[in-house]
Amino acid sequence: MSQDTTPASLTASEAARRIRDGELTSQELVQSCLDRIDAVEDSIGAWTHLDREYALAQANAAQDLRQAGKGVGPLHGVPVGVKDILDTSDMPTENGTVLHRGRRPMKDAAVVERLRAAGAVILGKTVSTELAVYSPGKTKNPHDPTRTPGGSSSGSAAAVASYMVPVAVGTQTNGSVIRPAAFCGVFGFKPSHGLIPRYGILKQSPPLDTVGVMGRTLEDTALLADVLIGHDSRDPHSRPMAASQISRIMAEEPPLEPNLAFVRTPVWDQAEESTKDALRELCEHLGEIQIMDLPPIFDGALEDHRKIMEADLALSFAREYRDGKDQLSKVLREMIERGQQVLAMDYNDAVARIADYQAEIDEIIHVFDAILTPATAGEAPVGLDATGSPAFCTIWTLAGVPALTMPILQGPNGMPLGAQLVSAKGDDARLFRNARWLLGTLNEE
Amino acid sequence: MSQDTTPASLTASEAARRIRDGELTSQELVQSCLDRIDAVEDSIGAWTHLDREYALAQANAAQDLRQAGKGVGPLHGVPVGVKDILDTSDMPTENGTVLHRGRRPMKDAAVVERLRAAGAVILGKTVSTELAVYSPGKTKNPHDPTRTPGGSSSGSAAAVASYMVPVAVGTQTNGSVIRPAAFCGVFGFKPSHGLIPRYGILKQSPPLDTVGVMGRTLEDTALLADVLIGHDSRDPHSRPMAASQISRIMAEEPPLEPNLAFVRTPVWDQAEESTKDALRELCEHLGEIQIMDLPPIFDGALEDHRKIMEADLALSFAREYRDGKDQLSKVLREMIERGQQVLAMDYNDAVARIADYQAEIDEIIHVFDAILTPATAGEAPVGLDATGSPAFCTIWTLAGVPALTMPILQGPNGMPLGAQLVSAKGDDARLFRNARWLLGTLNEE
Repeated sequence: MSQDTTPASLTASEAARRIRDGELTSQELVQSCLDRIDAVEDSIGAWTHLDREYALAQANAAQDLRQAGKGVGPLHGVPVGVKDILDTSDMPTENGTVLHRGRRPMKDAAVVERLRAAGAVILGKTVSTELAVYSPGKTKNPHDPTRTPGGSSSGSAAAVASYMVPVAVGTQTNGSVIRPAAFCGVFGFKPSHGLIPRYGILKQSPPLDTVGVMGRTLEDTALLADVLIGHDSRDPHSRPMAASQISRIMAEEPPLEPNLAFVRTPVWDQAEESTKDALRELCEHLGEIQIMDLPPIFDGALEDHRKIMEADLALSFAREYRDGKDQLSKVLREMIERGQQVLAMDYNDAVARIADYQAEIDEIIHVFDAILTPATAGEAPVGLDATGSPAFCTIWTLAGVPALTMPILQGPNGMPLGAQLVSAKGDDARLFRNARWLLGTLNEE
Repeated sequence: MSQDTTPASLTASEAARRIRDGELTSQELVQSCLDRIDAVEDSIGAWTHLDREYALAQANAAQDLRQAGKGVGPLHGVPVGVKDILDTSDMPTENGTVLHRGRRPMKDAAVVERLRAAGAVILGKTVSTELAVYSPGKTKNPHDPTRTPGGSSSGSAAAVASYMVPVAVGTQTNGSVIRPAAFCGVFGFKPSHGLIPRYGILKQSPPLDTVGVMGRTLEDTALLADVLIGHDSRDPHSRPMAASQISRIMAEEPPLEPNLAFVRTPVWDQAEESTKDALRELCEHLGEIQIMDLPPIFDGALEDHRKIMEADLALSFAREYRDGKDQLSKVLREMIERGQQVLAMDYNDAVARIADYQAEIDEIIHVFDAILTPATAGEAPVGLDATGSPAFCTIWTLAGVPALTMPILQGPNGMPLGAQLVSAKGDDARLFRNARWLLGTLNEE
């Protein structure tokens, strides 16, 4: 994965700057990414749809616009990978299932509209697990092809990690952005629920579904988040708000030295010893860090998440189950069948508790500036028949709070390991500022 | 019910003007209402909590403020009746059930805060049916004590109809504002879902629960609605929006002569012949009116409403059922028991269809200016053991669209009968403008 001097190795921020300043053309950048894809895609399998000529045609159009002095957005001419559960009006969107093979939506997801408005080149569609749940696609971990890249945003994480594209979009309903990002060794960000609109994206579970972003640097991750965050009334959970300013606030110095809490969730025992050690070492590097357990109310959080997600899968994929049950994976079929049995009052009870979880996290963030916690139990597991446990992401997804994984640790086999920073709902920008401070602290040593 | 010349007979708008202009004091008005209550409350039973001295103390305070030239709001010094499921920091709130006897909340419902900010005197708490569902309280219909006042906002409707208070607040989850208003012969308005915040109000079913208002004139109904509409983030369904302008827009002339649609819902067959005749005559008075049935999608609407409401009752009243089952009415117990069986996927499927119902009503309001339809099947039924059928309200509550009942018809026994005007979600102000036009048209004849 080592960086080289080709345009494909540039960050999105730097590439955008060079294109803006005339030092690089979008065609050169896209061609460099395509060359990289030609070299490594066979062994990684990050893409489900990629039309090289069409990608270059978009690059030409971006370059023409720039030449004409028009529409140079923050991602002008920069290629982006898009998970294949986001509708694209000009490419297939097959949602990781054979049941949707050949599907060609006529509209763009809100997120894709925003990417195009920012000038991005939609390079292609990245592999999703089956209907963005657990059953893996063809993608392998770029650091070790015998290991899972994680899921469900497998292709997005692998493509960014292997320099096929500088940034990519994924989604998370349990651990589908943070986990693959951590396994593949890139930054992954799941914003607060309601910030990035989900119109035109495969619906799994509206209280949980969250769009997220991946990049090789914190700056790129922030840049892509700023482009995608914004109100869209076509998503009923989308929150009206002023323009996102993550990049700007991230660049500021924290007014006080951030005070982190190392938080052990109810799944802490599932963490591998090497993960505990790595986190412990990180805490020592950072100095005085309070170690704490989540309050007992969180003991039921994973069960609440399971109820909500499975009941919603049963409704969202009712047609797929009814007409194509045999072509669903066993794991998804069983989730749907459990979900069919969930009672409305139990579902709504669990949904109502989301506010309680948020309030408890608010309490922590009232005292501490961010929560530090593992992103996964350990390194990406060996084997391509599963995508690893999402358990270290579940609580933060359920609570709808922002979570960011940073590829700053290493596992016992030299695989990347993520450190996850979490904050209170809505506090996405300060989360990035604290992450930048943390990275800076590590680099000083 | 005939009007007299005491201050209690004034409209809220006129009383507020006289208090503002120094022609009337709040004490005189409140005392007049209390006199009226002394005269008729024994035979009507509209109030569950009424502290005469405390009401007068509020009137004194309002008058002192006015004297000091401070805080003269749109309801300054005007008494308002508040349904006893809205929390009041200074009066009991017992939710119509013996299980909550002696309950004294420490905070005001958002709506009560808004009333106080507008200068209103909270005269007292009006009778609600058991937990705002079907089982009646003590209230009798002011027009005939052998007949139901309707429910669940029984006391609010009866108090306004019998000149005990000029305006009152109620709530509707099925037909609980429109039905009692129609049965008691007053105006009743259920705004679009999400306009009036529900913080501090007994929760039955969040997708359905709606605060509504009652008055003896359209102007008073609009005035009270304008005071109560507004965003409050403590209600997650509350919509951020600019200030309500129902009164202002209502006063304008419609740019075109309104074009009404007489709509027969799937429960049309439940309407009494005399109701059908009364509506038919009204349509003839109004000239060319298109008669239409709702599209077939609405055939399942009452069942969708039932599923949502009963599943939510099961959760909202889980504690009451678990610990006080024997002190719940049989009808509520059975609703809760059915609700306990509703599956999450069926519930969420029904909730998802709300948007489809709204879209169909939008289509109608794209062509017509308002829907005209009965408010109830007929006059208030004889008997005080039930509150009458809410079926003519259910669809509009489920769809979250604004509905207004006007006391302009009469039943075969001389009891009031309501004509219901309905519009598209969010189009509350034009609904009032069209209602004013309709009332004007009738008065011309």
